[in-house]
Amino acid sequence: MPSESVHTVRSYEQELGRMRALMTRMGGIVESQVAQALTAVIESDEEAAQAAPAQDPQVDALEREVETLAIRLLALRNPMAGDLREVVAALKITGDLERIGDYAASIARRSTRFDLADGRISLSGLESMGRLVQENLRRAIDAIVQQDADQAMDVWHADRAVDEYYTAMFRALVTYMMEDPRHIGPCTHLLFIAKNLERIGDHATNIAERVYYAVTGDNLPALRPRGGAQSDLTENVSPR
Amino acid sequence: MPSESVHTVRSYEQELGRMRALMTRMGGIVESQVAQALTAVIESDEEAAQAAPAQDPQVDALEREVETLAIRLLALRNPMAGDLREVVAALKITGDLERIGDYAASIARRSTRFDLADGRISLSGLESMGRLVQENLRRAIDAIVQQDADQAMDVWHADRAVDEYYTAMFRALVTYMMEDPRHIGPCTHLLFIAKNLERIGDHATNIAERVYYAVTGDNLPALRPRGGAQSDLTENVSPR
Repeated sequence: MPSESVHTVRSYEQELGRMRALMTRMGGIVESQVAQALTAVIESDEEAAQAAPAQDPQVDALEREVETLAIRLLALRNPMAGDLREVVAALKITGDLERIGDYAASIARRSTRFDLADGRISLSGLESMGRLVQENLRRAIDAIVQQDADQAMDVWHADRAVDEYYTAMFRALVTYMMEDPRHIGPCTHLLFIAKNLERIGDHATNIAERVYYAVTGDNLPALRPRGGAQSDLTENVSPR
Repeated sequence: MPSESVHTVRSYEQELGRMRALMTRMGGIVESQVAQALTAVIESDEEAAQAAPAQDPQVDALEREVETLAIRLLALRNPMAGDLREVVAALKITGDLERIGDYAASIARRSTRFDLADGRISLSGLESMGRLVQENLRRAIDAIVQQDADQAMDVWHADRAVDEYYTAMFRALVTYMMEDPRHIGPCTHLLFIAKNLERIGDHATNIAERVYYAVTGDNLPALRPRGGAQSDLTENVSPR
């Protein structure tokens, strides 16, 4: 029955295509959440501060939808080799995307909890770090959509620069706090914001690793060229 | 050929059993990392501070091993219904466990970066929070091992108390910083340590949700009784 087999193949491809479309949509929303979060902090934009968390339920719903579709694909289509790796990677990647959305929402909420009215605290480091993280995230999501291992590898290498920004920001913020106790409140929030941005970069790197594995069947080296954890070593605050 | 079919079923059960054993081992290591991290902070124990990050590569290797086995199971055994949900949940849960190990390692590393020599900063809140998080994590891992939906539901409800501890600690630490600028260094690290603990609790809750879904086929309500993100709203620091 060749017609039935063609039909089966077609609807299999359709389901895989649908899963990719859901991932792309999820990636798009998460990217917009990160952009809103940064606008909320840097421009003290109340509307953006509300907009990022408001998209959370949609991201959660998409994660579940991808999971349901993946389970269906695994049960009914028994995908093999590259397709199977792609379905498994999708299950993991949606977890990373969901976390990124979470961090973005958390940044946006924090942005309304402090003000920098005295103008002494510069946000230019945060702005540069934010741009870089957004760029990495955009490329990681492109790598998913295009199943592009080279792009994934580039993202994986770029994370080191994010960590360097984070370390510089950490030091600057602690210095502000020591200079004036009135800076302690806002700088504490900014410390968490910087950390959340660094974590977003970390998850973009995770996504890149997973795409690379799904496409090539090989793992990137276990030791990353950066270090979400290692960077903590450089936060060597001397308190006196 | 009944003997071959029996053989197939047996080795399928064996592989599923092996996957469960790997998860249990991964859970055990991650639990010990969290215990080491807390000992490192609370007792300024250098050895424990080294021990937690030292286990990271093993956790990463186990995550990959579960993934490889899961892919094999999905490709060759085409598991259905509850078994399929369990394999998919395993892929997600190992991601949560890996993150928990990461947070524990990060706490342990930080513990060596400051000292509380002046004795003014109390760690009793952190100690209580740590005990609760460990308890939740232990129960979440039990729920995986025993595929116990009721246990999972209990963990899910218990996370609210972790958030309350975190909020109280956040306030106390900011107060210490404002009292004496020499507290800014150590308290900044303690803020991150408390946040990491809260995130560990969050991932234990994620695990509980996934176990619940794998066992019952139903999702826990989208709105959690707690709020990793919501708790940020209560960190309303007034800096002046």
